Amino acid sequence: MEELEFGGELEKKTAVVEQVIRRYLPGDDGGYAKKIREAMCYSMEAGGKRLRPLLMYESYHLYGGESAIVEPFMAAIEMIHTHSLIHDDLPAIDNDALRRGKPTTHAVYGEPMALLAGDALLNYAYETAFQAFLYTYGREDAEEEDGRIVEALRTLGEKTGIHGMLAGQSVDVENEKSGHLSIDRDLLDYIYEYKTSKLIEAPLQIGAILAGADKSDVFCMNDLGKKIGLAFQIQDDILDVTGDEEELGKPIRSDERNEKTTYVTLLGVDGAREKVESLTRQAVELLETVPGDTAFLIWLVKKLAARTK
Amino acid sequence: MEELEFGGELEKKTAVVEQVIRRYLPGDDGGYAKKIREAMCYSMEAGGKRLRPLLMYESYHLYGGESAIVEPFMAAIEMIHTHSLIHDDLPAIDNDALRRGKPTTHAVYGEPMALLAGDALLNYAYETAFQAFLYTYGREDAEEEDGRIVEALRTLGEKTGIHGMLAGQSVDVENEKSGHLSIDRDLLDYIYEYKTSKLIEAPLQIGAILAGADKSDVFCMNDLGKKIGLAFQIQDDILDVTGDEEELGKPIRSDERNEKTTYVTLLGVDGAREKVESLTRQAVELLETVPGDTAFLIWLVKKLAARTK
Repeated sequence: MEELEFGGELEKKTAVVEQVIRRYLPGDDGGYAKKIREAMCYSMEAGGKRLRPLLMYESYHLYGGESAIVEPFMAAIEMIHTHSLIHDDLPAIDNDALRRGKPTTHAVYGEPMALLAGDALLNYAYETAFQAFLYTYGREDAEEEDGRIVEALRTLGEKTGIHGMLAGQSVDVENEKSGHLSIDRDLLDYIYEYKTSKLIEAPLQIGAILAGADKSDVFCMNDLGKKIGLAFQIQDDILDVTGDEEELGKPIRSDERNEKTTYVTLLGVDGAREKVESLTRQAVELLETVPGDTAFLIWLVKKLAARTK
Repeated sequence: MEELEFGGELEKKTAVVEQVIRRYLPGDDGGYAKKIREAMCYSMEAGGKRLRPLLMYESYHLYGGESAIVEPFMAAIEMIHTHSLIHDDLPAIDNDALRRGKPTTHAVYGEPMALLAGDALLNYAYETAFQAFLYTYGREDAEEEDGRIVEALRTLGEKTGIHGMLAGQSVDVENEKSGHLSIDRDLLDYIYEYKTSKLIEAPLQIGAILAGADKSDVFCMNDLGKKIGLAFQIQDDILDVTGDEEELGKPIRSDERNEKTTYVTLLGVDGAREKVESLTRQAVELLETVPGDTAFLIWLVKKLAARTK
């Protein structure tokens, strides 16, 4: 019953998120630079769970947000995420040919164009987020709203850069080169927290900031993101061993081939599963302390922990 | 006499710019992500003319700007420029081993780290620019200044992305692949205007915006940037044929080796020189219409046209 109800809600909400994302994609300006725009849109339209903008949307509404200022930020967080996928897939890093069952961006548009399209998506994320200021123009509470937008921009920058996702990616890349013997649990936690959790914390936190939530609520959303992100990444490790290639849209056992240390190599599949369960339990407990209707979010967090793709 | 006077002024101003840039570089946060920060700083500290922040500084003061809000933007524009150099030098694009006489970032830190350090610099440019809001906090004219910062951010984003520099780079990359026969003068003008001029227009325009200049002045600075940028890029073409490798800090005749169409291949060295001269004349004429002391800027524009490195 719950599955049916919330499953339908997820579908509806994802459709809304999808619409928002497409509305903010760059349009044809009639100039020579068609290919890079095509490559950007190809990657953005290649599907995916749209988890990050969905979490932002949920957090924004949970704290009573009602305006359109959240929309450019929803598109922006997905652009940043997609930028990181394009660059991660490049021959210089993971050299992956498939992503979500489709050829990766460089496989279609070539390496130089994929590199530039990734740069352009990161930059366009900020161009897009700046559009939020347009929505407050002339409004009575413009000054207050603009302050929230500035705080949201700062959070977006910090969670993406060298104190966020890119820090985690850089340490990940260093460790792949140096062989997996040197990675202990602390270092792996660092990599996962930065590489994955930061970009889950960001949308939850930004949603709360834009809605004008209290500092303690913003902090709570951050904490929630940390737990969901870590559980998400460990589930990825598990699926790389136990998953179905067709369902996942990418080859499995890539961690083993690349001799990567993961939660599965450190704790075994069962140990990794226990960790996902305990993190999910903590996330749910946290959500139960939040006033307002968190039933859908709780269901979503549980669903993510049980996902098979 | 003029050379002596303005030469000294250039030295002093460049030293100020250099200080500003270094103040905004990321510091050690004690975490695991040391290498990526090192790679970012390596590229940022590898020298260069610091032309873009210098132009922003000039434009800001020309229109009466007096606060520190310009400083984070000065650092940001240099970070964006350096980001584009790191990614341009990568094997996927130009595959260059030397830049300003030093090994390129990927030659020192490896390709994956150079890719991520480039991403991180682009992102950090925005993180840095957002700091401008800190300087208006509590000030009487905060609302007005914040409005200018937002406009400057929008300009920075637009001039960098797919309606700016990255558009030009993407068309450049497409044309290298497809061979030089297809490039006519119109397309080359497009590439140069976007690849190079946009990031010269940006600092001149942003300086004026932050100083609160009129729309017509901002437009004038944009026009000036277009001319300086095009002259600068054509001078690059000329130096690639006539320059001295040691002085340039990079190999010459690379355009010929890469079979690139340039202003020299289209117009010959003399024709290209004439174009630089005529653009410089136009830039000087424009500067002569601007109220205020533009003597140093006029000298600088002429000096750029005669540069040998």
